[in-house]
Amino acid sequence: MHNWLLPEYIEDVLPADAARLESYRRQILDLFRVHGYQYVMPPMMEYVESLLTGTGHDLDIATFKVVDQLTGRLMGLRADTTPQAARIDAHMLNHQGVSRLCYAGTVLRTKPDGLARTREPLQLGAELYGHAGIESDIEVQRLMVKALQLLGMRILFVDLSHVAIFASLSHIAQLGTQQERALQLALQAKDAVRVQELITNLPEKSRKAFIALTQLNGGVEVLEQARDTLPDTPEIEQALHEMVTVADVLSSNEVTVTIDLSELRGYQYHSGMVFAAYAHGYAGPIALGGRYDEVGAAFGRARPATGFSLDLRGALQALGPAILNKGILAPVSDDAELMAVIETLRGQGQVVVEALPDMLLNYSELACDRTLQKVDGRWQVVAV
Amino acid sequence: MHNWLLPEYIEDVLPADAARLESYRRQILDLFRVHGYQYVMPPMMEYVESLLTGTGHDLDIATFKVVDQLTGRLMGLRADTTPQAARIDAHMLNHQGVSRLCYAGTVLRTKPDGLARTREPLQLGAELYGHAGIESDIEVQRLMVKALQLLGMRILFVDLSHVAIFASLSHIAQLGTQQERALQLALQAKDAVRVQELITNLPEKSRKAFIALTQLNGGVEVLEQARDTLPDTPEIEQALHEMVTVADVLSSNEVTVTIDLSELRGYQYHSGMVFAAYAHGYAGPIALGGRYDEVGAAFGRARPATGFSLDLRGALQALGPAILNKGILAPVSDDAELMAVIETLRGQGQVVVEALPDMLLNYSELACDRTLQKVDGRWQVVAV
Repeated sequence: MHNWLLPEYIEDVLPADAARLESYRRQILDLFRVHGYQYVMPPMMEYVESLLTGTGHDLDIATFKVVDQLTGRLMGLRADTTPQAARIDAHMLNHQGVSRLCYAGTVLRTKPDGLARTREPLQLGAELYGHAGIESDIEVQRLMVKALQLLGMRILFVDLSHVAIFASLSHIAQLGTQQERALQLALQAKDAVRVQELITNLPEKSRKAFIALTQLNGGVEVLEQARDTLPDTPEIEQALHEMVTVADVLSSNEVTVTIDLSELRGYQYHSGMVFAAYAHGYAGPIALGGRYDEVGAAFGRARPATGFSLDLRGALQALGPAILNKGILAPVSDDAELMAVIETLRGQGQVVVEALPDMLLNYSELACDRTLQKVDGRWQVVAV
Repeated sequence: MHNWLLPEYIEDVLPADAARLESYRRQILDLFRVHGYQYVMPPMMEYVESLLTGTGHDLDIATFKVVDQLTGRLMGLRADTTPQAARIDAHMLNHQGVSRLCYAGTVLRTKPDGLARTREPLQLGAELYGHAGIESDIEVQRLMVKALQLLGMRILFVDLSHVAIFASLSHIAQLGTQQERALQLALQAKDAVRVQELITNLPEKSRKAFIALTQLNGGVEVLEQARDTLPDTPEIEQALHEMVTVADVLSSNEVTVTIDLSELRGYQYHSGMVFAAYAHGYAGPIALGGRYDEVGAAFGRARPATGFSLDLRGALQALGPAILNKGILAPVSDDAELMAVIETLRGQGQVVVEALPDMLLNYSELACDRTLQKVDGRWQVVAV
């Protein structure tokens, strides 16, 4: 084996792509900032109890673990920043009113995840704590749409679901934990045959409702069909009302809202509306989010919470090619005038690369397309 | 144990400090960019063979290891980005001429390191490959000084050493590997008694030279003393010449050059001049760097290399308090005019936080000091 080969699904980001990632990272963080989302930097590693409490089995198996040599306790490398942000809201800030937090950093996963097929997503996200109303769901979804538009994605689809619907049906059918989990996975996998198998012993009303879930996907008209088909519980009524409200606000020329009531991603974790964003010409979900009012409870302070995150490294595939601004190659010289010109150009944001003695001048390798020459007694920028 | 307590020497960075870190991170990366250093993002983890080959024992014990579930091989979490950048230079870019690379990212260490006492430094650095001359040492040290001045550090000290001197003395004395290592550690620890113990069996000339090393520290005049005291080998002559040249260039009102010939940090790793930057009012080295021409050899392509890095998280202690720009709190409203005003203000970089229904308006928690009010029929920003 060559010792410079990287593990599978682990990659370097080289200059052209790194410049693009950095530029979009800044633009998205600035977008979050002007919307009042405060940047926080949770650590790359924590004790597993903090990282994984209340987040479910999937995140556990995705999390690399190491032993803390200082205490012998098990630490995990974060596979998701959301629980960390919830911990910060609950214990570090301890606001009585609304908190808005955002983050941008690497997360690590034991196996490749998402359509980007990476084990090292660059996760950017925004979270809103302390408000249970639909207005905060709308705020974070609007923010997500703005972030994706900023990435240059013009034709967007936001797919809505609501875990309270399945939870209510599960409650009516008095499902045990294992049966509920199996049914959730079958619905999530759109495996109608398996769903049929799992519900054969249930009352007809419940059977019909679960089967309806596998079919209730499509445009916003699905919400009307759901009202006609699903049991008339207060929870389901409210869930459908929330989805209609959000769909109305989000729908526009640029955003198409779709519905998929069998979407139960992160069911253990989410508590209300969940959403995923897709873009024209891009295969997988670009951003994911939802309401997770119970996550803070693991840290002894349950707060309403909703937010979204995206993998910028994955999204990069969907973006146009990099446009690298070429630099100016300055000749080897001790001339004080030249030095002053170089510093002025750099102060204007121009890249000026200083040539080094006895080195070949490869403009392509140095990413330069201009040079500095003394013309008419003055140092001037000249194309090559 | 509370599950929201973090491991020792692992910390959250909360909004005020995170905003400062992000601002300085951008400014330093922009500084690197205008000097022609191209940003790369090596992965957080790699096979240990790639991370640790040729880097010495210290980095090995500082590196967290995990098993790759896909291959069963051992991976390490980077404890230093320099070997990764060298790997990228050697195999990903494969330039024939000079490459300049920079990076900014988290590194993880099994035990707290440096005076910042963190296990999670935020390492920013710049590396120059493919040039062996003193001009590239000067370039990276000047860049380091600019970076520290950008952080607001006005009174700087750059401490120079050169591993070729000890290497030459070690060669003359025909030290074995173990004896050389022991002597290096004793010199590094400024432990003159231990140095004496380790050299009792050496010829007098070597004894004198090693003892001289323990005393050759102070201002640039030390370089003259070294010329008089140390053996007259070509390697030592060249090393001293290089240090005189760099000291001349760097010395100014703002930078004081000091010399410490017993400084042998990273001796296994470095191959030429090494340097450390200190700032007035700050206890430890702020930035470290040096020449390490042999690192690429581990990847089958030895290239001259020099560079430096700093821990921005650690440097933060040395910086002034954060100045957070307060935001504008917008009232709950569907008014289209208000929405337009909000978006205009955000477009200008202003933070506008939208109030949410039924929530307490805590200006302090929301980090706002102004609000939007309709005055004379127009929405206007008003101080609170």
